[in-house]
Amino acid sequence: MSAEVTTFANGFRIVTEHMPGIESATVGLWIEAGARHEIEAQNGVAHFLEHMAFKGTARRSALQIAEEIEDVGGYINAYTSREMTAYYARILRADVARALDVLADIVLNPAFDAREIEVERGVILQEIGQALDTPDDIIFDWLQETAYPGQPIGRSILGPSAQVSGFHAGDLRRFVAEHYGPGQMILSAAGAVDHETLVRLAEPLFAPLHARPRLVPEPARFISGERREMRGLEQAHFALALEAPDYRAPDFYASQVFSGALGGGMSSRLFQRLREDRGLCYTVFAQSGAYSDTGLITIYAGTGASEIGDLAVLTIEELKRAAEDMREDEVARARAQMKAGLLMGLESPSQRAERLAKLLSIWGRVPDISEAIARIEAVDGAAVRAHAERLLSHSGMALALYGPIDRAPYLSALSERLAA
Amino acid sequence: MSAEVTTFANGFRIVTEHMPGIESATVGLWIEAGARHEIEAQNGVAHFLEHMAFKGTARRSALQIAEEIEDVGGYINAYTSREMTAYYARILRADVARALDVLADIVLNPAFDAREIEVERGVILQEIGQALDTPDDIIFDWLQETAYPGQPIGRSILGPSAQVSGFHAGDLRRFVAEHYGPGQMILSAAGAVDHETLVRLAEPLFAPLHARPRLVPEPARFISGERREMRGLEQAHFALALEAPDYRAPDFYASQVFSGALGGGMSSRLFQRLREDRGLCYTVFAQSGAYSDTGLITIYAGTGASEIGDLAVLTIEELKRAAEDMREDEVARARAQMKAGLLMGLESPSQRAERLAKLLSIWGRVPDISEAIARIEAVDGAAVRAHAERLLSHSGMALALYGPIDRAPYLSALSERLAA
Repeated sequence: MSAEVTTFANGFRIVTEHMPGIESATVGLWIEAGARHEIEAQNGVAHFLEHMAFKGTARRSALQIAEEIEDVGGYINAYTSREMTAYYARILRADVARALDVLADIVLNPAFDAREIEVERGVILQEIGQALDTPDDIIFDWLQETAYPGQPIGRSILGPSAQVSGFHAGDLRRFVAEHYGPGQMILSAAGAVDHETLVRLAEPLFAPLHARPRLVPEPARFISGERREMRGLEQAHFALALEAPDYRAPDFYASQVFSGALGGGMSSRLFQRLREDRGLCYTVFAQSGAYSDTGLITIYAGTGASEIGDLAVLTIEELKRAAEDMREDEVARARAQMKAGLLMGLESPSQRAERLAKLLSIWGRVPDISEAIARIEAVDGAAVRAHAERLLSHSGMALALYGPIDRAPYLSALSERLAA
Repeated sequence: MSAEVTTFANGFRIVTEHMPGIESATVGLWIEAGARHEIEAQNGVAHFLEHMAFKGTARRSALQIAEEIEDVGGYINAYTSREMTAYYARILRADVARALDVLADIVLNPAFDAREIEVERGVILQEIGQALDTPDDIIFDWLQETAYPGQPIGRSILGPSAQVSGFHAGDLRRFVAEHYGPGQMILSAAGAVDHETLVRLAEPLFAPLHARPRLVPEPARFISGERREMRGLEQAHFALALEAPDYRAPDFYASQVFSGALGGGMSSRLFQRLREDRGLCYTVFAQSGAYSDTGLITIYAGTGASEIGDLAVLTIEELKRAAEDMREDEVARARAQMKAGLLMGLESPSQRAERLAKLLSIWGRVPDISEAIARIEAVDGAAVRAHAERLLSHSGMALALYGPIDRAPYLSALSERLAA
């Protein structure tokens, strides 16, 4: 299996991968625009726009959009991230053309009916309420804001309620005009799809679009800082971030392997020390996420009011120790987990379509899986320790705390401990 | 593709399905014992036991269990439901034997070390705290308790904190002795697996176990009732349940199709009326879940303090209207969604292994997918309306409310409206 790529003259890209033996497909449009492409007054517009795509087009009502996909048992959804917005459908083999027609229509021809905007505003305000009611969701918004204060990449994806309350059709149209050019769009599909057929179907829909200049978002600057929100919850929620490599950085895979060995699975150091040895938490993990010009290693754990001090200090100890004595066998295990995770992910049409779109966006081509495997294989213990050492000495830390956290140490104390 | 089944003399069952073109597999042990097999003083033991399986055996420490699977990039996990406990691993083709050996060891030979029990108690108390901090999680526990008050099936899976604080090794051993006989165990695998090989590997591990009598849990009795928990949250969380058919009931598929048309997708009545037309909520759904002797149609939505009254009344209106005028095209769409969902689920080794285990447990054989499809096809508009009519006239309702719910109607008012 290997990916096929076609690029139209206006910059619109199509990437597909046929998966033998699979009777369904995932087809989607990945737009290279997200929350970090908003200026402050626009914060929440990218996500509002994603919602409005489903609320009617020139040709279809909201109900017709849903019915056209669900009539054939398909599933249609969308998400907004900080750098991308995706609209995708999972359908059976026979319905690929139908899904593409609906996806193209909702992305290219949204109606932005004034009454529908009012109704959807209510929906999004409820979505914001739901996030605020979920401590282990909202804490990551606060962590992001703390790590990138006053910057587009630091703002929440949903946007502030007050601002969401004020958006109108003009705000949505402006964001589309600025960021939804054909050069920012990738049509990606995996599963029971045929590349030539998809290209032929996409041609009349997307080839006529006029190319537009691409607006580059403000570069990210990681800053140390902390946010502490006291509240009478059952758990004290702890989230810590350090700056990690961007997607294209040479040490991207070292960072991935490092976060895996630190807190990626049941055999990881944080899981073993905090949960298995001490019983301090149910959920604990470290993960390494990347953007185009920055990244974050994020550690999260939920613990009790009396345990938050111990948990914070042990986490810092483990971070420090990882730079000193991360062993070859631990690194080998983290590599094996990454490789197997990649291979297993390829067996799902949805994960595969998303991966194709992201790879094409990052690299301008779809590197073979063997390239990723080779780069993972190249990460040894020395590389991980050196990476951790660099990380700890240069990055600073962002900290977010939520719940009964009066006994949690301050960032300054944790930083001193790390430097000691 | 078709499932192969082998049963040992002691009742232990093995079911597998080979999936061509897939390089990974999911292998797991599904035990026909869960929270509803506990007596009241045991509530939480089935889940505690599931945790302790990972905390060491006669041959392996907790760390060794995790390492043995993660060394080869595998993933191991477990869950406890009301009727089953599952221990499963997702691994690459070459590691099926390794995964089986680990799974058998943790299920058959847990050490129940006293110190490890103390540590894991802390982990579970944090898990309970996490559930309590997540309104759209805990509300379903309250709904279950309200629907089946004072009954094993109504109790929470995690158990009350006070009780979890008191369990010791004897409690765990007693539950194992009562419910973990070979006749209650199903080894299920899907993906890159070979049936004969798995049977050969399982034989020395499971065939020598002595058959034990099966203890049948107390039958379920659905009761009308409500639980209202006031709290200063962003959203007013609303959950409503009606009694639905059990797994083997003739109208099981009518109920599934009904709940799909009522609130299963974007084109469903509840999504259209509450979210698309009125903007009252972000999350809203109806689903139909089944047990061996009962089932629940559950409706959930999160809304605002001022909107909860409207939302509750509109939900009742839609329930009532569904029994009167559910159209053939809506039912056809719900059927299409169910069928496609089944087919797409078959493309994931994990979903497939779980489905095999459940089918074998329910039916004592693995019906071909065509049987399920035929039963779905047989559900027409008249069947759905008749089912809804029966449901509304006989079942009564259970209601759970959480958050700023002072303006929410009482169950009596909603019941009157339904009957009017």
